[in-house]
Amino acid sequence: MVKSLVMPANKAFSELERAAVYRAIAERRDVRRGFLSRPLPDELLQRLLAAAHSAPSVGLMQPSRFIVIRDLAKRRAVHDIFKEANAKAAAIYEGAQGDQYAALKLEGILEAPQNICIVCDTQNERGHKLGRQTMPETAAYSTVCAVQNLWLAARAEEVGVGWVSILDPIRLRAILEIPDHILPVAYLCVGYVDQFASQPELERSGWEKRVPLETAVSYDTYSEGSKS
Amino acid sequence: MVKSLVMPANKAFSELERAAVYRAIAERRDVRRGFLSRPLPDELLQRLLAAAHSAPSVGLMQPSRFIVIRDLAKRRAVHDIFKEANAKAAAIYEGAQGDQYAALKLEGILEAPQNICIVCDTQNERGHKLGRQTMPETAAYSTVCAVQNLWLAARAEEVGVGWVSILDPIRLRAILEIPDHILPVAYLCVGYVDQFASQPELERSGWEKRVPLETAVSYDTYSEGSKS
Repeated sequence: MVKSLVMPANKAFSELERAAVYRAIAERRDVRRGFLSRPLPDELLQRLLAAAHSAPSVGLMQPSRFIVIRDLAKRRAVHDIFKEANAKAAAIYEGAQGDQYAALKLEGILEAPQNICIVCDTQNERGHKLGRQTMPETAAYSTVCAVQNLWLAARAEEVGVGWVSILDPIRLRAILEIPDHILPVAYLCVGYVDQFASQPELERSGWEKRVPLETAVSYDTYSEGSKS
Repeated sequence: MVKSLVMPANKAFSELERAAVYRAIAERRDVRRGFLSRPLPDELLQRLLAAAHSAPSVGLMQPSRFIVIRDLAKRRAVHDIFKEANAKAAAIYEGAQGDQYAALKLEGILEAPQNICIVCDTQNERGHKLGRQTMPETAAYSTVCAVQNLWLAARAEEVGVGWVSILDPIRLRAILEIPDHILPVAYLCVGYVDQFASQPELERSGWEKRVPLETAVSYDTYSEGSKS
């Protein structure tokens, strides 16, 4: 009975295929510098969007919408609101930390020839609310799964992706004409890069260190891992 | 100057490696049935958790915590709250849609020998709030990126993952002893399966259909895609 519902067994991933998936996961970086000015071919861009679009979604509602921004005037407008939000953000850090923050490169809005704003139609009726009655936030979470799919596919294509969250969402809505019922989830800078850093930029710059896995895992009940 | 900050160029992904990443993305399924009773070897489980743990996180805050639930009494308790939430959810559907909902298999909590609850320490000071002043929801979004990493790594390992959102988060907290300041993001059923379906279960059962990519993409400004 169950068997009749599923398709014939897929061929298992080979060792090389499995390693490639782990490689994309390990070598993915949040890229803020080093974008090349050469735009992505449309075919490649569509492959990345298709990878995002095939992400899981609660109740199969597929709430994610992708706004591809190549227009320079639009990107300049977004860059302006980044600068404003970043100046406000910088003001909370003092002394050496303030200097360190000021030296960070946190976006590549103008350097990356294409930006992609990924938004979520949280109220969409598709899926008939299946899975959203107890945890309605899973609509937005579905869109984040799309972001991560795109990020990993991009890494395999030697395309860098950087997520910019230092933006006032209200002003971003105005620039991109995003209606009130649509939730901006991620603003991404996307483009070819000639290399990927071996460490996250925030670690390399001394802003923060990664913690080991065992500090993040517990068994059968929640418990605080050992602190780093 | 920029060059000195990055490591020597990585070798580009081969065509086979690239295809493997797209394969994992395309063949990932939300699995609710067909879990095998054989538990995952600990080494494999740790590989999946490490993949999740290496997800991007805002400000490198790494807010995700992983609760691995193998204890049957705990899983029974979670299954009980699923049944209750699902009965309430089912009550909103009438007639043929109600019958269809009742026939859906929406979780594998007891069949999958391990469940993983992924939670987010949204208030953690790690990352020094970088990127979280304008969009604080990016802490939870970082945890969703971890979920998707785990999901894709699992697919490459022939391990099925199903996300259960039909749970009352307050009661889930009580069972897993999750403190108030920690946000439950995803409850996953995880285990070996002998095959993966070629279509999403909700599509196969006629609950919902997937829409084509072009309905989800617009350029430079938001616009509604053509409706399916």
